[in-house]
Parts: sequence; C-alpha cells; structure tokens
Amino acid sequence: QARVSKSRCFCADKGVKMVPPKLIEKVVIIPPSPSCKTPEIVVTLKNSTEQKCLNPESKFTKKYIMKAVAKRSLEKK
Amino acid sequence: QARVSKSRCFCADKGVKMVPPKLIEKVVIIPPSPSCKTPEIVVTLKNSTEQKCLNPESKFTKKYIMKAVAKRSLEKK
Repeated sequence: QARVSKSRCFCADKGVKMVPPKLIEKVVIIPPSPSCKTPEIVVTLKNSTEQKCLNPESKFTKKYIMKAVAKRSLEKK
Repeated sequence: QARVSKSRCFCADKGVKMVPPKLIEKVVIIPPSPSCKTPEIVVTLKNSTEQKCLNPESKFTKKYIMKAVAKRSLEKK
C-alpha cells in the first residue's frame, strides 16, 4: 500500500472512498505536479474545517465529480 | 444568457471554456447549494492569484476533470 513515489503529496494515502454528499462544501482537484505524481482530490466538509482526501479511484468520487460537469444535461439547455 | 436564478453564485457567468492546463494549480468544484443552483468550477492558476470560473459544460472542463479521476487506469494498478 505504501507509495514511496508520493513524496510531497497533500494526501498521505489514497483517502476515503466516500463522504456524505450533503456534507460536501467543495471539492478541490490538485493536478499532478513535479512534487506529487498523482492527481489528488481533497474535500472540505460543511460541518468542519477539516479536509479529507478522497480516493480518485472510488466509484463515489468518479460519480460525484462527473455529476458536476454533466449536470446541465438535465436542464435541457 | 442572463441567468437570474444564479443569485448567489461565485461565478457571475458560465466562465471560460478553457485555460492552459499547465497553468492550473488547482480546480475547485462547488456543488449546487440553496444559494446557487448550479455546480461551479473555479480554477486557480499558477501564475496569478486570480481565480477563473470554468464552464462546466465545456469539453475542456469535462476532459480535464475526468482525467483526474481516471488517471490511475494508466498505471495499471
């Protein structure tokens, strides 16, 4: 599980697989950089100042993020 | 073009269709809330403190964001 390549990443590990969507205040995507090879996804929750790392590979993360960019299709223009 | 429903949104309009990917420091997704009905996507650029709204409907946005959550597939575990 240890990924030594992630030297200067914000997230120490892959992060949680999901958080309650209603508690999400914002989601921050940090793209790969020289200091951290993998994209990182950090959520800020409404009921705390804490930031949680969200596993980019989890189904929840993918779905949640895709909803943000796909939303408009529901509005039918 | 005016969307009166967006009363308290961070973004005044739909935002730009793209920004140079190399300049992206982070991307913030703000989910819909009682004060702003539509998801908003805000990028912070490396060379400035300015934040830009990114059009969630643009191809660039969708691709860029999906890359973050799909990345691992390239690593073949």
